[in-house]
Amino acid sequence: MSHNTFNTFTDLNTLGEFGLIDALTKDHPSVKNTTLKSVGDDAAIIKNEGEVTVVSTDMLVEGIHFDLMYTPLKHLGYKSVVVNLSDIFAMNAEPSQITVSIAVSSKYSLEAIEELYDGIYTACKMYKVDLVGGDTTSSPKGLIISVTAIGQASAEDIVYRNGAKKGDIICVTGDLGASYLGLQILEREKQVYLAHPGVQPELEKNQYLIERQLKPEAQAGAIAYFRKNKVRPTAMIDISDGLASEVLHICKQSGTGAFIEEGKVPIHPDTERTAIEFKLDPITCALHGGEDYELLFTIDEKDLDKIRFMPEVYIIGEITDAADGVKLHTTGGNVHDITAQGWNHFTE
Amino acid sequence: MSHNTFNTFTDLNTLGEFGLIDALTKDHPSVKNTTLKSVGDDAAIIKNEGEVTVVSTDMLVEGIHFDLMYTPLKHLGYKSVVVNLSDIFAMNAEPSQITVSIAVSSKYSLEAIEELYDGIYTACKMYKVDLVGGDTTSSPKGLIISVTAIGQASAEDIVYRNGAKKGDIICVTGDLGASYLGLQILEREKQVYLAHPGVQPELEKNQYLIERQLKPEAQAGAIAYFRKNKVRPTAMIDISDGLASEVLHICKQSGTGAFIEEGKVPIHPDTERTAIEFKLDPITCALHGGEDYELLFTIDEKDLDKIRFMPEVYIIGEITDAADGVKLHTTGGNVHDITAQGWNHFTE
Repeated sequence: MSHNTFNTFTDLNTLGEFGLIDALTKDHPSVKNTTLKSVGDDAAIIKNEGEVTVVSTDMLVEGIHFDLMYTPLKHLGYKSVVVNLSDIFAMNAEPSQITVSIAVSSKYSLEAIEELYDGIYTACKMYKVDLVGGDTTSSPKGLIISVTAIGQASAEDIVYRNGAKKGDIICVTGDLGASYLGLQILEREKQVYLAHPGVQPELEKNQYLIERQLKPEAQAGAIAYFRKNKVRPTAMIDISDGLASEVLHICKQSGTGAFIEEGKVPIHPDTERTAIEFKLDPITCALHGGEDYELLFTIDEKDLDKIRFMPEVYIIGEITDAADGVKLHTTGGNVHDITAQGWNHFTE
Repeated sequence: MSHNTFNTFTDLNTLGEFGLIDALTKDHPSVKNTTLKSVGDDAAIIKNEGEVTVVSTDMLVEGIHFDLMYTPLKHLGYKSVVVNLSDIFAMNAEPSQITVSIAVSSKYSLEAIEELYDGIYTACKMYKVDLVGGDTTSSPKGLIISVTAIGQASAEDIVYRNGAKKGDIICVTGDLGASYLGLQILEREKQVYLAHPGVQPELEKNQYLIERQLKPEAQAGAIAYFRKNKVRPTAMIDISDGLASEVLHICKQSGTGAFIEEGKVPIHPDTERTAIEFKLDPITCALHGGEDYELLFTIDEKDLDKIRFMPEVYIIGEITDAADGVKLHTTGGNVHDITAQGWNHFTE
């Protein structure tokens, strides 16, 4: 019994912390042979493969990062894992283990937490990673999830944000802006529901956008393709904050400029249609919406042939000299600065 | 600008997430040559040394694990790191990197967060680990801290909880129960203060106990001693939940019993005195208090000579057959079962 302390969990059906961890992690044997010790000791033990360990972590807070009114707990669990795996892929590495810590208020039942873990384990299975540790505790209010993802790689495979150079081709692995519009739809339907609780939400026709928001995927396929075809991007980053912010990160860290061709940026037809419905410019949603979890990467010109046949890849621009700035070439023939701020910067 | 999303931080002096991370991590260059990439990319990159990576994580929640009325933020930062490093040492490994994620409500100023990070970096310096990543976000209420500690080790050095065998000697690295009584004093002075805000708290004479609660240390010295003297414990665990709980973990996982000699359990004179003041049995505080962050370990009989000259070590019992149970031999000559529950189990 710890009265104080760093390990209490009394509110949830009096299971206690050990009972809860047992209930959540049983029936999930490790799938990675690098997982030497999983849950159940002071720390997890992972066998080193390759020369480096890759580590990334994110914290998700109820009321800030997610709204349980329209986020099913299973999707939330899935997404919390995926957004972390995405960071490991963005280093051109493969994730192998995760730890998950949650703090949860007494309003949650064991069944609700099991739903969350169901999503977490679904993501583990999909991406072949082991859940090897974590912490469960109570919170005075709401749900907080902290996930740490770990991968192992060869040192020469690692791709940083800072390796882009003039003449490199800028690519992206999938369409952008959909997740942001999915969120706008969910927010709109929530407001409708709050005003008229009897009205059923109109979600079917927006399934693609909503799925991009609630159940994003990480780009495991792209990393596998790079490995198989012996191509190494010169710089890479995952798109969590929007294309503009990520291009600026690469240019700042690489000491370069860049231009993006507006007409080349992949935007899904549903994104186009819904952006207009919300009186937004689709390219603005792609540039500033975020949460797409696609990879933005640059490759040397000479590698262009190697990526032409990637199942999903879009060439959207080119790296330039720092003095040329970071620019958007619009379909109308204009040139704008790309900035991290101004949401409505490009709308008239 | 991320409206949605997984990376907002707008409440704290409009610094934004990147401004905050910059403000917090600048002037802290890495000290480990295994830190190949720290804060500033999608993930941290750590050079592998030895065959395994050791990972542990904890989440601390305001109002559950700490009370800011008597916990200085600098101490809180220090302790959040130390409790995680303690888990790495408990595997007989040395920590080398940590990640720190915080969620913080708008009532906190940048200066308050800097105070917290001052404590975090003080612990990093003391234990020679690098802060290599993390996440900063807002919370609707209070402060949440999630720390992940990482170490690298040789596979043959790792010590689990499950290696104890009959005849092994049970040892502990320092005195127990002090942290729990430190907390009782802080709670009592808080109640006095709330009833009579003018009264100054009586903390000086209880400095040792309060320091054990607010600023615990991890047992780096013990691990260094093991390495230097070529002794490998057969099982080890850190004492976060109290001696009783930890002995039971070792016995359960090792498939053994054990006895602990009450008279051999190290208890500080201040702990003795204050326990009696609170009408508690000192051995009860040692068994069930927790948060001591000493190491409990077992060694083969033949290694006894190797640890006799450890700067701080106490031999408190012996591993027995599982059938013999887990027992306390009291100074009065009685034998009690050691259980994880009953706080007042041993008091008359």
